[in-house]
Amino acid sequence: MAAALALAARTRGRTAPNPNVGCVIVSDGRVVGRGWTQPGGRPHAEAMALAEAGAAARGATAYVTLEPCAHRSPRGPACADLLVAAGVARVVAALTDPDPRTDGAGLARLAAAGIAVSTGTLAPAARESIAGFLTRRTLGRPQVTLKLATSLDGCIALADGESRWITGAEARAHAHLERARHEAILVGRGTREIDRPRLDVRLPGLENRAPQRVILSSRLVDAPGCTVIASPADIATLPGDHLLVEGGAGAASAFLAADLVDRLLIYRAPILIGGGRAALGDIGLASLADAHGRWRLDDARALGSDRLETYVRQR
Amino acid sequence: MAAALALAARTRGRTAPNPNVGCVIVSDGRVVGRGWTQPGGRPHAEAMALAEAGAAARGATAYVTLEPCAHRSPRGPACADLLVAAGVARVVAALTDPDPRTDGAGLARLAAAGIAVSTGTLAPAARESIAGFLTRRTLGRPQVTLKLATSLDGCIALADGESRWITGAEARAHAHLERARHEAILVGRGTREIDRPRLDVRLPGLENRAPQRVILSSRLVDAPGCTVIASPADIATLPGDHLLVEGGAGAASAFLAADLVDRLLIYRAPILIGGGRAALGDIGLASLADAHGRWRLDDARALGSDRLETYVRQR
Repeated sequence: MAAALALAARTRGRTAPNPNVGCVIVSDGRVVGRGWTQPGGRPHAEAMALAEAGAAARGATAYVTLEPCAHRSPRGPACADLLVAAGVARVVAALTDPDPRTDGAGLARLAAAGIAVSTGTLAPAARESIAGFLTRRTLGRPQVTLKLATSLDGCIALADGESRWITGAEARAHAHLERARHEAILVGRGTREIDRPRLDVRLPGLENRAPQRVILSSRLVDAPGCTVIASPADIATLPGDHLLVEGGAGAASAFLAADLVDRLLIYRAPILIGGGRAALGDIGLASLADAHGRWRLDDARALGSDRLETYVRQR
Repeated sequence: MAAALALAARTRGRTAPNPNVGCVIVSDGRVVGRGWTQPGGRPHAEAMALAEAGAAARGATAYVTLEPCAHRSPRGPACADLLVAAGVARVVAALTDPDPRTDGAGLARLAAAGIAVSTGTLAPAARESIAGFLTRRTLGRPQVTLKLATSLDGCIALADGESRWITGAEARAHAHLERARHEAILVGRGTREIDRPRLDVRLPGLENRAPQRVILSSRLVDAPGCTVIASPADIATLPGDHLLVEGGAGAASAFLAADLVDRLLIYRAPILIGGGRAALGDIGLASLADAHGRWRLDDARALGSDRLETYVRQR
């Protein structure tokens, strides 16, 4: 299942309105097929893995990060039907599919065909892997990730505005990879006008993966090729299931004040600035007690001499 | 040697003017003696370990975090002589003793008696373990540790001053343990007058280990029982080899601006404050390039839901 989750991560940010799913087919202890939801949402992971496995799928076990779909569509057959036809012996799913067209019907169809089925394996990680899809379904908006790049004392720039560079090359490359995993990327009007960020993906082979650029501005801005929204509350209209908020402090604070941040990426350089520009302005916090219990550390890693911590909002 | 270093840490902050040293004596693969510099500086680690080992020290290996001393004093014999008399076969030292009364003479005396000697094992960790002693010897002042307790966005309080509590019980207990490892603890005048910190050690069994309280103030203050210094440059006069700077932002910034911080303890809670009080004010940084290359991460650990990172100044 962990391998299937790694495959699912490959197209995070490119499968909307479908979830990014991974599938691994194992026969006699050997992987015979691997698949993941393709860009645009089709083919599904199971179809791709079954195509690779061919006849080897007969009697095999399929590990999928989400329940196989039970609904045919003009864009492809139901994965549950494909698995039955291929003769797999067992299907291990991390989650049931909340889509009302499936919602247990996929697993039921498999079980009716005599296939052993189970759910729940690595379910928390699987939920995190399709958090964008689930957020869109449950809250009607994309999952929002806020990126901060700070010094140890929480500054994003010197007092005079100098901010290049706080983090090193490895951290900045990772931040570009994160851009490629989001359909849309947002900055505030001030950051756009002062820093003129290109907001593209400057990584070899991923140059064409630049997300839709979005500007947060309460007044009209001349921004060709960009989408402009007046308030964080307007993100429901944005394309895709993943929005990356890159700054500056005003935009970050507006999203936090609206409690519209689901995931926090903090890139921290081992430097002290002192008296610099704060990462955040007022986020409407009335007391320290209200600040606690909201964020859970999900991952911490070194990137060169910097560190990246990922926090997830507890709801 | 790692075990000897753990023993050496027991009396960090209580052995000045002597270094805090650890010693483990091993015979036939078994630990037969353990010692560490006692409070006040005597007995030395080797004397304590040899006393525990007794006749078992004959033919054994002694691991010491610092070269055994070669000089007799009214307070005790030379450890090199004790090791020779005990008949140890081998002495493994992490470092040579920079004290001019020893400085290689201890190892030479051991070697002359037919004992196998070596140095360099875990030398970087050993230097860190007696950094206070070495700082006093080389720079004529105590080692300075700056403690910060911040939110993820680098705030030490809400805008209205509320700061209790940012970190949780585990982190606060650890901070009290750090107090017990310092001979002196400093706060700025403002912090003293507003927060009225007790600056004691509120841990069971360590209540009597409160460090000397020091106030940083450029004007006269009425502070019974406290030492007052007018500038960070005055720390040479303070007792002991370890000074803990606990705040507030003004005192922290003054020490950083003077480049008088050797070690940084950052306790971070998984909360965002936004628009709160910054951990630091101006520290005299002219450009980002000057900020880089100064701090190396030495340790990172979880304390409840908080995290502690220890950085060491690269000089």
